[in-house]
Amino acid sequence: MATSWKSILQNEQQLQELAWQAVDKALMEGVLMRTKQDPGSSNIVSYAPFTLFPSAVPRELLEQAYEVQVDFNLLVDTVSQDSAFLEQTLSRALVLVIAKKEERNVFDQHYIEHDLLARNIHVIRRSFEDVAETGFLAQDRKLFVDGQEIAVVYFRDGYVPSQYSPQNWEARLLLERSCAVKCPDVATQLVGTKKVQQELSRPGVLETLIPDQPEAVARLRATFAGLYSLDVGEEGDRAIMEAIAAPDRFVLKPQREGGGNNLYGEAIAQTLEQLKASEKRASYILMEKIEPEPFGNCLLQAGVPAQMTQCISELGIFGVYVRQGKTLVMNKHVGHLLRTKSTKYADGGVAAGVAVLDNPYLV
Amino acid sequence: MATSWKSILQNEQQLQELAWQAVDKALMEGVLMRTKQDPGSSNIVSYAPFTLFPSAVPRELLEQAYEVQVDFNLLVDTVSQDSAFLEQTLSRALVLVIAKKEERNVFDQHYIEHDLLARNIHVIRRSFEDVAETGFLAQDRKLFVDGQEIAVVYFRDGYVPSQYSPQNWEARLLLERSCAVKCPDVATQLVGTKKVQQELSRPGVLETLIPDQPEAVARLRATFAGLYSLDVGEEGDRAIMEAIAAPDRFVLKPQREGGGNNLYGEAIAQTLEQLKASEKRASYILMEKIEPEPFGNCLLQAGVPAQMTQCISELGIFGVYVRQGKTLVMNKHVGHLLRTKSTKYADGGVAAGVAVLDNPYLV
Repeated sequence: MATSWKSILQNEQQLQELAWQAVDKALMEGVLMRTKQDPGSSNIVSYAPFTLFPSAVPRELLEQAYEVQVDFNLLVDTVSQDSAFLEQTLSRALVLVIAKKEERNVFDQHYIEHDLLARNIHVIRRSFEDVAETGFLAQDRKLFVDGQEIAVVYFRDGYVPSQYSPQNWEARLLLERSCAVKCPDVATQLVGTKKVQQELSRPGVLETLIPDQPEAVARLRATFAGLYSLDVGEEGDRAIMEAIAAPDRFVLKPQREGGGNNLYGEAIAQTLEQLKASEKRASYILMEKIEPEPFGNCLLQAGVPAQMTQCISELGIFGVYVRQGKTLVMNKHVGHLLRTKSTKYADGGVAAGVAVLDNPYLV
Repeated sequence: MATSWKSILQNEQQLQELAWQAVDKALMEGVLMRTKQDPGSSNIVSYAPFTLFPSAVPRELLEQAYEVQVDFNLLVDTVSQDSAFLEQTLSRALVLVIAKKEERNVFDQHYIEHDLLARNIHVIRRSFEDVAETGFLAQDRKLFVDGQEIAVVYFRDGYVPSQYSPQNWEARLLLERSCAVKCPDVATQLVGTKKVQQELSRPGVLETLIPDQPEAVARLRATFAGLYSLDVGEEGDRAIMEAIAAPDRFVLKPQREGGGNNLYGEAIAQTLEQLKASEKRASYILMEKIEPEPFGNCLLQAGVPAQMTQCISELGIFGVYVRQGKTLVMNKHVGHLLRTKSTKYADGGVAAGVAVLDNPYLV
């Protein structure tokens, strides 16, 4: 945090005035979100929560994060054993966005749709239910939805088990079986599970997967926190005993996307005491807790007064890779996402209403 | 209306889907408005109502409207006998926007503020009440508000008598007495009154005001509808009798800015019967009713289902002129505003919740 902001953070009236200006500007720039009360309509909207100031991020760390993203892309691709390809015969013409009908984040998604449209690539938005009703595979596994051939399927729904009804599973299967490019396909999605992360963190695994690139392996490993399997067996028993003895050193994570599901502190000890004799324990992984340095910022959230808050941040990097057969034709980083939340919340993302959007102020 | 839109206007489902897309896009482009329920906050906002399709406007008419705007600027300047000037000694540095604290149209105003800021011209927003509290004139009638010198005062409040409390009148007087450039100053604002419009429409008046430019006079006169004084006297008596006999040919207008105050049909006859013996009648003017051709469009308003509506439009042109002493240093048109409403409303603007924003589709 720059020194000049510190005095503003101390002055409630100045802070509130600046917050109002920032909120209006954010709304005008399209930082929008539908309301929790009415996620199916844009009659009234609110702003996606964000920080009043950018947060300090060491320039070297951001550069390191960008650099390693290309290695992550390579790793994900290798692990997924993905056979995705850019089918020359596809018309590369219609993109199907799989999204819920009631979606607060619809504006975030529209930006991608409009960018594609600006490149003359047309997009249709459909739910899993819509696909189940009107989707079918023609010859050569060509995918048709609502009578239109689909070249690419982009998933903005279907990341947690609760989003799959039996009908939705059928729709997903249809999409996976099609020759349309899936973003991501089910194999790539599974690479993102914590169980795979845990396997990757075991000694020797990275070296086996990426045998000829020791520098990439070193860059990747430098970003790993300690991950411990709770599988039934000696190794798992040892991890459980350590966590029960010192739960504040760990986070206990179920196999889930999205925030709000993790366990901390005494809840870890209690849960592990209950689970340790059961095979269910394998569905959790234990992670070493990261303890970032808190700093002051002002979180702007609709209906919450602007005030100085002690915060911590999480930096994410967006990566893109495309493989055609055995050739990686594109592998690059394409931006970042800095999410910041009050230290009073142990867990939770932007969608969960805890974290807010932030920008790195390089120092 | 282009033929291809006609079929969409008939298809309710297609219309609704297109309306949702258009609303989301408008929100993302910043076509925002605060809600009626909470005009003082941007916690939740809505969109400024607009038409789904642009409305057909003959190209020649739009060109004519643009052309005559420069003449209007000249006329306004001449009539106002304005002594506004660009004071070289002013710092042209801080602009004061006079606005209500609870203002639904705050985003519309912010666009102007941000454009100025992009040119490194700083803006402060204050209400009349704020000016009354902290405003004063220093030597040479320099204006200071909140301790900051003001070069330009831009009024977005104070257009109707009800917006002036005694305190607000004092604030306005202070602003007028200052050497800051007023946009508009009180003389220019008075030129906009219907009473002045009525005087301008009398035979020979335009020729006297703009003696050397018969072409400009002809262009201006071509835009005038019939305007009749209701002043006490023979001429006024005749106008009142005609209006009572055939009220549907006229609109009866009080001296007001903003929509929603005009009288139509039988209400004209009733009002004039009541007023004809009183001097109050001079505070109204009688205008020949313009009967535009209705057409089909779809008006997008928060909470109202998308459907085909019979509409009429009103085209406005923005003009800019700057005079320094006796020299007109700038006189040009700078854009248009097409407002469209359902034929079921006789009267009312965008702020009144009746008309919506539209775009001319040149034919």
